[in-house]
Amino acid sequence: MIKVSVVGITGFTGLELIKILLNHKGVEIAHLCSRSRVGEPIFKVYPQFSGVIERVVEPIDVELLKESDLVFLALPHTVSSGIAKSLFGKTKIIDLSADFRLKDPTVYSKWYGVEHPAFELLGEAVYGLSELNREMIAQAQLVANPGCYATSVILAVAPVAQFLEGAVIADSKSGVSGAGRGFKEGLEFCEVNENFRAYSVSGHRHIPEMEQELKSFNENIRIAFIPHLLPVQRGILSTVYMQVEREMDFFKLYSDFFNGDYFVRVVNSPPSLNSVKGTNFCDIYPYYDRRTKRLIVVSVIDNMIKGASGQAVQNMNIMFGLDEKEGLGGFVFYP
Amino acid sequence: MIKVSVVGITGFTGLELIKILLNHKGVEIAHLCSRSRVGEPIFKVYPQFSGVIERVVEPIDVELLKESDLVFLALPHTVSSGIAKSLFGKTKIIDLSADFRLKDPTVYSKWYGVEHPAFELLGEAVYGLSELNREMIAQAQLVANPGCYATSVILAVAPVAQFLEGAVIADSKSGVSGAGRGFKEGLEFCEVNENFRAYSVSGHRHIPEMEQELKSFNENIRIAFIPHLLPVQRGILSTVYMQVEREMDFFKLYSDFFNGDYFVRVVNSPPSLNSVKGTNFCDIYPYYDRRTKRLIVVSVIDNMIKGASGQAVQNMNIMFGLDEKEGLGGFVFYP
Amino acid sequence: MIKVSVVGITGFTGLELIKILLNHKGVEIAHLCSRSRVGEPIFKVYPQFSGVIERVVEPIDVELLKESDLVFLALPHTVSSGIAKSLFGKTKIIDLSADFRLKDPTVYSKWYGVEHPAFELLGEAVYGLSELNREMIAQAQLVANPGCYATSVILAVAPVAQFLEGAVIADSKSGVSGAGRGFKEGLEFCEVNENFRAYSVSGHRHIPEMEQELKSFNENIRIAFIPHLLPVQRGILSTVYMQVEREMDFFKLYSDFFNGDYFVRVVNSPPSLNSVKGTNFCDIYPYYDRRTKRLIVVSVIDNMIKGASGQAVQNMNIMFGLDEKEGLGGFVFYP
Amino acid sequence: MIKVSVVGITGFTGLELIKILLNHKGVEIAHLCSRSRVGEPIFKVYPQFSGVIERVVEPIDVELLKESDLVFLALPHTVSSGIAKSLFGKTKIIDLSADFRLKDPTVYSKWYGVEHPAFELLGEAVYGLSELNREMIAQAQLVANPGCYATSVILAVAPVAQFLEGAVIADSKSGVSGAGRGFKEGLEFCEVNENFRAYSVSGHRHIPEMEQELKSFNENIRIAFIPHLLPVQRGILSTVYMQVEREMDFFKLYSDFFNGDYFVRVVNSPPSLNSVKGTNFCDIYPYYDRRTKRLIVVSVIDNMIKGASGQAVQNMNIMFGLDEKEGLGGFVFYP
Repeated sequence: MIKVSVVGITGFTGLELIKILLNHKGVEIAHLCSRSRVGEPIFKVYPQFSGVIERVVEPIDVELLKESDLVFLALPHTVSSGIAKSLFGKTKIIDLSADFRLKDPTVYSKWYGVEHPAFELLGEAVYGLSELNREMIAQAQLVANPGCYATSVILAVAPVAQFLEGAVIADSKSGVSGAGRGFKEGLEFCEVNENFRAYSVSGHRHIPEMEQELKSFNENIRIAFIPHLLPVQRGILSTVYMQVEREMDFFKLYSDFFNGDYFVRVVNSPPSLNSVKGTNFCDIYPYYDRRTKRLIVVSVIDNMIKGASGQAVQNMNIMFGLDEKEGLGGFVFYP
Repeated sequence: MIKVSVVGITGFTGLELIKILLNHKGVEIAHLCSRSRVGEPIFKVYPQFSGVIERVVEPIDVELLKESDLVFLALPHTVSSGIAKSLFGKTKIIDLSADFRLKDPTVYSKWYGVEHPAFELLGEAVYGLSELNREMIAQAQLVANPGCYATSVILAVAPVAQFLEGAVIADSKSGVSGAGRGFKEGLEFCEVNENFRAYSVSGHRHIPEMEQELKSFNENIRIAFIPHLLPVQRGILSTVYMQVEREMDFFKLYSDFFNGDYFVRVVNSPPSLNSVKGTNFCDIYPYYDRRTKRLIVVSVIDNMIKGASGQAVQNMNIMFGLDEKEGLGGFVFYP
Repeated sequence: MIKVSVVGITGFTGLELIKILLNHKGVEIAHLCSRSRVGEPIFKVYPQFSGVIERVVEPIDVELLKESDLVFLALPHTVSSGIAKSLFGKTKIIDLSADFRLKDPTVYSKWYGVEHPAFELLGEAVYGLSELNREMIAQAQLVANPGCYATSVILAVAPVAQFLEGAVIADSKSGVSGAGRGFKEGLEFCEVNENFRAYSVSGHRHIPEMEQELKSFNENIRIAFIPHLLPVQRGILSTVYMQVEREMDFFKLYSDFFNGDYFVRVVNSPPSLNSVKGTNFCDIYPYYDRRTKRLIVVSVIDNMIKGASGQAVQNMNIMFGLDEKEGLGGFVFYP
Repeated sequence: MIKVSVVGITGFTGLELIKILLNHKGVEIAHLCSRSRVGEPIFKVYPQFSGVIERVVEPIDVELLKESDLVFLALPHTVSSGIAKSLFGKTKIIDLSADFRLKDPTVYSKWYGVEHPAFELLGEAVYGLSELNREMIAQAQLVANPGCYATSVILAVAPVAQFLEGAVIADSKSGVSGAGRGFKEGLEFCEVNENFRAYSVSGHRHIPEMEQELKSFNENIRIAFIPHLLPVQRGILSTVYMQVEREMDFFKLYSDFFNGDYFVRVVNSPPSLNSVKGTNFCDIYPYYDRRTKRLIVVSVIDNMIKGASGQAVQNMNIMFGLDEKEGLGGFVFYP
């Protein structure tokens, strides 16, 4: 049994990690820590777990955490890298924040507005997009778990990146849980319900992450990316438009690219959030529009699972040589 | 391993049964049958199961079904009892339709508008409200799985039924999945969304079921019951108002009554659908209003799980001497 | 043209007042005031009004407000009565807060937790339930506009209040706009959407208001009232259960009671929020359940209109001898 | 007073026309006709209009309709042109179907799968995008009211069409009312709610309409257009990506282009459905992304109003020399 701990359990990604790990047959949960609500039973933080989880919220104690084989950090960026510095070398780390996703600390500074708090570790971090970096993840001491939007877009683009001309257009739509738990201006029910809007039009932090990872397939990749807020709890659907001059059998090309990847399903009709909500799947549908020479790819994920905690556990399974699917057998939230 | 089959898998309760049984460690699924779509892979009926379930929809073949230790019938009423007649005596049966819930065939005729198709079996059927009839369920050959509304109201009333004066008022609100899968007039998105309404005001079929079961606690019980349609997928919340002249420690009374019942949680603040959605729990909150001498009880369940397929599996576990919780460890759909 | 002003325009009731008054042919808007955002154009507060409303938010200046024929106060309780004191005698007032609804200042103190800030005016205030108090409203200098829940319940009960035995059970369900604009804990999208819950189970502030007004019909009236939060923007549906021993022609009784009341429609099938959302109507459906001797009445209103700003304008029309319907001809928000 | 009739009132666009026309000071409603429910009071078709509209549904009688100054046809395509043929020359016509939008009958046949039922009238029809074709509309006997998606995309593209290189990418998201009233497979509440999906990926019928109208600005225009289904009642948001090599002051360019157009608002932050829902406005936000040389334009409309019945009335106002805003002063549905 692998001993794992989760740091940052009062947010949605921490909660989702707990739910997955409790059903995982290969792990034993060592510590569940948070900066707030220390000492309270977890069923006080989440009344839904009354009778289900007996544990108490623990403080973040690096000495105790070191006893774990793996620590998941589900903390805000900049906070996360601080803890990571103390833990690195003593335990494996999967960081769900943005802190170790960008290789170049100047790019980090530009997009996150602060100097990188642990740039000395950037060289150690492996970008944890499981399907693309499986072998490096297997060896990693520190995995930077990808952003939710980035996951949905990179998987849609990677198979054809080498054939692209011009900029990629990625139009993404996300459920509200992507914004995290707790109050944020503009996320009141009366503002989101029956509404829809674009945001971060002038630049979203997942753009450098997407371009960095896709550069290994195409040095010149550039992405125009606009995220939108859907009035639903969960799920991201990205519609990606790419200029490809020559028609190919894209269904086969995608299927071959993801051959052996259980969690990526290349499908032959447009998928919906209902196809994946509650699961670790990414469903991808490619369609070539001859009139405009655009390859249009629709990809869907559950932002909390394949877009965050599920992929984190998938990466853990890879790091410890477990079945990649272990713990990730949840069924769709439908109806 | 118990061999189980499900008949009627194209509806929501059948789908939910499949999802639960696939995670159940004590069963082996023998046959998945339906009246329609026979021969198609299940992932054609539910694209969400692509790559997850390989099986094909089978026709309803009584000879094959007899090889099962247990058959779940997830069929419309009147259809269900027809199949049950053929199977009775050869295999155990849990019927999720309304056909065997009412002991008195004249009451059935009155509320369902047809003569009972299998009244000779009525004496064999045990009403499958797990917490109340556990011992009879353990011995049963035929279990009538309770209605969703009935489950939420009976559990709220039973502990105090003997103390009641006057009629019980049960005001229930249900998510739309309770109406089943497929088109029904008035269930279009534009009619349900941003809307709310009462229905079956002149009498809902779950009333005789509630009164029949509560009569064992109080011969004179009468219930005024109004269901309402919530613009959500899942969940039932019932607010029950009961006249009790003398104040008692109702929290203790309810806790004692359900002592040892893992799936009933007596809680000390009003529960929400979020407390139970995705689980087999029924959360119950009692509050005594001295001003009006009304005991007000709020109960919540997931209509698809404790209100249907989850309780069916709970009953199966009881019938076969398994851990009552087996297969029912799902976590809340939250966020 | 009547000169009217609105104080408190950054909240939902203030916004709704502006929308109604701009379409009202008998009024001229003098001042639109607020405690916050003074000096900003209204289309900065509500971008939806860009190009539609040119006015600027004004400070609350009692000297200027006195020039109005009528001032609407759309302010929090306790704040409202402070302004009302300064204005009383100089201009007519319609107060949409709770400050002047309760005749007895000790009852106010009990439910609102503070001493009444202007108890000397309580004797002057008329409870503005238009259909019940039309003649007193016509003469009033100060109208206390009713609470939204109170409106929906009082109209459902008043016609039969004299026949009732035992406590009235009022089970109400409200859309989220009833909680006002801006952040409140528990009203985040991810907490309200796909959820449903009861609240204020131990006592809601609209109870004394309901009982006070219904006492003129039945001295012994007592109400058990539980509000619930619906995942919709607008609307209240109240299901009211009343013990009436003798069956009557309740449809006729209600129709006669509201004869001549344009905004109350007695209907012969259960109404939905869609019946009234966006309008000043209250639809009422009575049904007598012989089995339990309960008269069950379903009433629906738009909480922002008949439950707040619409009824306020209806009261203004009565006070100034205008057509009661003027300005209130909006159509349902459907689809 | 202009005498107007509406043919096809049981659908959503017909309903919306009635609501607008009842508030229009320059018209008198002559006939409200339908193929179904003839003879029933309109408040039977729409219970929400009980007490508000007294009229009865009339049959479609061309002789009677000819007495109108203008007839709105809110009928399915192919049905609409049949009626139009009988009426043309006797009364002005605004057709809300797709029948007269495409100038070329072979293009119509290709996209609608049937021969055009009234191709002899195609030369008479004016495409009713009010802001672009105001002068021709003023002279027209037959106006083809634009499609909802087409309206949102054409207004976003027209001002810069002459500067574009490569294909335009139009990613649109629509509320469910765009699919019309009544049951359609896949539009059940449980399928749409908490879900999101692309549809008509292989080609939507509004594409030829968009390209036809934009060709007058740029002969080589080509559009890749993907519509998506939002879980909301109303509203379309289109995110349009256009390659423009040289940066300009696009805010000024758009503002100048729509100078004098009351119903198009060029805005300086991304608009939401809440900005326009319930109104005839189209809000447009241009943003230039230097990194990718893409001009990104977000446009929002209410699909039932500016996307259908509101624009139809705007066109009527233009045809009869009325104030273009008359009858279209509705406020946003917010909260």
